[in-house]
Amino acid sequence: MQYRFYYWPMIQGRGEYVRLALEAAGADYVDVAREPEQSGGGIPELLKVMQSGDDERPPFAPPFLKAGKHFISHTPAILLYLGERHRLAPSSEAGKMWAHQLQLSITDFDKEIHDTHHPIASQLYYEDQKKEAKARAGDFLEFRAPKNLGYFEKVLERNKSGDGHLIGKRLTYPDLSLFQIVAGLRYAFPKAMRKLEKKYPRCVAVHDEVAAHRRVSAYLASERRIAFNEMGVFRHYEELDARG
Amino acid sequence: MQYRFYYWPMIQGRGEYVRLALEAAGADYVDVAREPEQSGGGIPELLKVMQSGDDERPPFAPPFLKAGKHFISHTPAILLYLGERHRLAPSSEAGKMWAHQLQLSITDFDKEIHDTHHPIASQLYYEDQKKEAKARAGDFLEFRAPKNLGYFEKVLERNKSGDGHLIGKRLTYPDLSLFQIVAGLRYAFPKAMRKLEKKYPRCVAVHDEVAAHRRVSAYLASERRIAFNEMGVFRHYEELDARG
Repeated sequence: MQYRFYYWPMIQGRGEYVRLALEAAGADYVDVAREPEQSGGGIPELLKVMQSGDDERPPFAPPFLKAGKHFISHTPAILLYLGERHRLAPSSEAGKMWAHQLQLSITDFDKEIHDTHHPIASQLYYEDQKKEAKARAGDFLEFRAPKNLGYFEKVLERNKSGDGHLIGKRLTYPDLSLFQIVAGLRYAFPKAMRKLEKKYPRCVAVHDEVAAHRRVSAYLASERRIAFNEMGVFRHYEELDARG
Repeated sequence: MQYRFYYWPMIQGRGEYVRLALEAAGADYVDVAREPEQSGGGIPELLKVMQSGDDERPPFAPPFLKAGKHFISHTPAILLYLGERHRLAPSSEAGKMWAHQLQLSITDFDKEIHDTHHPIASQLYYEDQKKEAKARAGDFLEFRAPKNLGYFEKVLERNKSGDGHLIGKRLTYPDLSLFQIVAGLRYAFPKAMRKLEKKYPRCVAVHDEVAAHRRVSAYLASERRIAFNEMGVFRHYEELDARG
């Protein structure tokens, strides 16, 4: 089955956690909005699905995945679905739920990262909330980033079965997502992360393990991987980063 | 099986969506932190579980539910679990996933509501971010609340099988959560909601249907239901509400 994946074509955003899973699984998929408009792709196609009036189960927002007849929206739900079908999650019921819970923590963390540059309104420009962003980013780097990274470090420490993995000794989708968090924080807050990540060597080890994964590394080197930029979740604004 | 539910004892918060499901199901549960300390309850018991060094799968934060040997954390994951076991979700795989997706939209909405009074730092006092809260609440009432409520209104409109329900013609846990959203917004923003809710009559109908549910109405009238207050997600600050 070929999946149809729908997300904004110019950013990694919340969709990137799904792209990483599709790539690591070697799944057959089309990144719909990145296809040319003349062949039924582009943002118009994404909006068409969003605004279609006949779907009984409309998605709230991208990303969403079309698998067969069904649409699945929300990153953690898509990964719950893909994880089971592509061996990117444990096979036991309790293991599957644990992977899902880790992903829900990643989702909350991702939202906190987004709000460092948009604390007042996601539809306003960053420039219109710069002062507030500085306050929020300061709190984030001092308290929230350590709390979140510290949590994943603890989970890794307690996983006795495998270094470089959050669950057991194999790659699962929460590893891919933690990779994305570390890579993104390095992009957004390079100075702060240089200091911060020393305290979370196990998170860094997951990042390195994922980056070296055969399919993932091919993806990261390809044009399919959109570069970090100032439209996504992880944005680099010098003034929000820690001082030197 | 008796569930053990762990959440802060003085607020509804994110835990309330779970409490509503446990109550609507007539499930056997203990609200651990609301039990007296001398009989193994209270906040100390909650913290003991949080800080226990031997759990391989530690929760990030309350709420979490102990079901048999396993802990499940994160509101949407707990509801995914309870929904299946207590007929509070459709029985088909696709139906279960749809209920879960609706709940993930509720979770994002809930976070947006929380951030109206804490746009800068959740650990700081409201008083220390009052100006920023005013800007964020303004944006919320003008854009984000309509976008979110409008989405649920659309889902209700497209559900041809039953008035007053998001899915099919029976009560499911997303109905309970939408009830909580409407009740909470009425508490937090009474003036704004008086105007707003006229546009979302189907959401109000779900609220009324849930409030009239035999077990839920008994719960709401009992001392088990904690009153809304200024420590939870939905807080009433006159200055954040719409003008008269």
